[in-house]
Amino acid sequence: MKTTAAANANIAVIKYWGRRNEELILPNNNSISFTMDSQLETLTTVEFSEKLKRDELDIDGKTATEKELKRASKFLDVVRKMAGKKMFAKIDSINTFPKAAGLASSASSFAAMAAAASKAIGIRLNEKELSALARRGSGSASRSIYGGAVEWLAGVKDDGSDCYAVPLASYEKWKDLRNVIAITNSHEKKVSSTDGMKITTRTSPLYPARLSSVEKRLAVVREAIKENDFEMMAPAIMQESNNMHAVMLDSTPPVIYLNSTSFKIIEKVIELNDSYGRPVAAYTFDAGPNAHIYTTKKYEKEVSEILEHMNGIEKIMVCKVGEGVRYLEKHLF
Amino acid sequence: MKTTAAANANIAVIKYWGRRNEELILPNNNSISFTMDSQLETLTTVEFSEKLKRDELDIDGKTATEKELKRASKFLDVVRKMAGKKMFAKIDSINTFPKAAGLASSASSFAAMAAAASKAIGIRLNEKELSALARRGSGSASRSIYGGAVEWLAGVKDDGSDCYAVPLASYEKWKDLRNVIAITNSHEKKVSSTDGMKITTRTSPLYPARLSSVEKRLAVVREAIKENDFEMMAPAIMQESNNMHAVMLDSTPPVIYLNSTSFKIIEKVIELNDSYGRPVAAYTFDAGPNAHIYTTKKYEKEVSEILEHMNGIEKIMVCKVGEGVRYLEKHLF
Repeated sequence: MKTTAAANANIAVIKYWGRRNEELILPNNNSISFTMDSQLETLTTVEFSEKLKRDELDIDGKTATEKELKRASKFLDVVRKMAGKKMFAKIDSINTFPKAAGLASSASSFAAMAAAASKAIGIRLNEKELSALARRGSGSASRSIYGGAVEWLAGVKDDGSDCYAVPLASYEKWKDLRNVIAITNSHEKKVSSTDGMKITTRTSPLYPARLSSVEKRLAVVREAIKENDFEMMAPAIMQESNNMHAVMLDSTPPVIYLNSTSFKIIEKVIELNDSYGRPVAAYTFDAGPNAHIYTTKKYEKEVSEILEHMNGIEKIMVCKVGEGVRYLEKHLF
Repeated sequence: MKTTAAANANIAVIKYWGRRNEELILPNNNSISFTMDSQLETLTTVEFSEKLKRDELDIDGKTATEKELKRASKFLDVVRKMAGKKMFAKIDSINTFPKAAGLASSASSFAAMAAAASKAIGIRLNEKELSALARRGSGSASRSIYGGAVEWLAGVKDDGSDCYAVPLASYEKWKDLRNVIAITNSHEKKVSSTDGMKITTRTSPLYPARLSSVEKRLAVVREAIKENDFEMMAPAIMQESNNMHAVMLDSTPPVIYLNSTSFKIIEKVIELNDSYGRPVAAYTFDAGPNAHIYTTKKYEKEVSEILEHMNGIEKIMVCKVGEGVRYLEKHLF
């Protein structure tokens, strides 16, 4: 009844912003991401036990907040219902990177928790089922089940049974891809993604047009991933980031995650591409001010150097594309 | 052949961003503004003379740049064609406020130039004709012909003959309105409005949806102006500003005029309104980082005090609603 799993964060190039079902976490559009390497990893041990009187959750060695525990318990309820069992669980979770800084820790957390909890309670799930389960904890966690390039299918069914992620390309195929991450602000964000999405879908007059335009970018990125063509993908990645942050700004009240450093980075990446006359790097921003600059091995150093000369950047990390969820022999407790 | 006119800047609450005809400056949508008082004024003397060998332009006592002269000459060509005359002109223009800082100096400049040049060359125009003429210099100049609240009609005709501004309410009716202006950056902007508009209309997938949504806000603001109802107008003003800056961000490359101080001001205005439980102030940003906070006499001081405690603001001005274009007896040269 005790299992440990590891999962890595993923950084979307076509974003998830807005749900068609809040409870089941069914998104309005497909999204595509690359799973990162183990620099952005969550390790999670789950143990179900008849002896426990309530769920227990430690994150990074500390007792979790009531809010975090409530979210985990709600997720465990889904697992318990699937297994037809009523035991509580003890969970220990360790992140290799700061929580809620826009580095998508909820994706790796719930992917690892889905894998560990389902196995610990004794249910066997295939990858699609595991992806659909992880989705119930955090939408983007559905993508962290797989390594490499991944597409999360929005599906059309009300019960969410066609809503899970599928692999698009292995991480070996994209081994030269780099995500140069500029941490511009590691404090926790003010508006959660869940709240921000609700505000946008309810109030932005431009949001329906985003849903139409995202289809075109999905097609381009899907093709580029298949063809292993970074240059084809790069403009669509930047447009997609701009488009998502545009509908956030169009919301009432406006949902603003970017800061002045983010805008300076956007400018620098455009200048870099202009200097080559072709896209060698592509910025993307999640629900936070940290920049993810996708580029290739060849330009990794040049991108890093540009960032090193800028003010307002706390830390620079370079991630490769990594693998999907895996089980470990050694437990955290 | 020598005439002097004065015109004030106007600050739009429903914005002009995108043209259906570049040459004639015909916009894609109607816009609504308030004309400001004489703190944001341009005085312009125009003299046509057979003796001149080319047009001459001084701005704020200095010889204008070739680019500025070219734009003025192109405008004078329109006036000369209307009059059927071929004389060159000497123009002196003085602004009471910094050029190209997002304070809409082109609006007051071309409104004053249209009034002075047309009279100097001997043609008599009614207000609609004068508005249509000013439009040829700078779109928003069409609105500065009138005082108070003004709507610029986009029209539908290819020749632009139905494209001019009309008054919505006198400045006496809105005498309690205030525009608390926070100058966050008085340097000239990088991307001109003309270029920025082109980029947005050509590349933003969200732009067509903006044009649909702006119709609803136009109706709300028109009704609010008629009813003299600030609270009705305020949310639409903020939504409109967010919406325009959203399609700017959605452009390729993104057109970004706001800075971190602008975003902080947005936050503060929302907090202020939340504290009252109703909108007592409304921010709006043109193609620049300066904030225009529309409020009423009653809250003017409170809004100013909030801005005084913020970093990144170079200057605070409080404008009232002002009058339209007028002729002066005294010339600048």
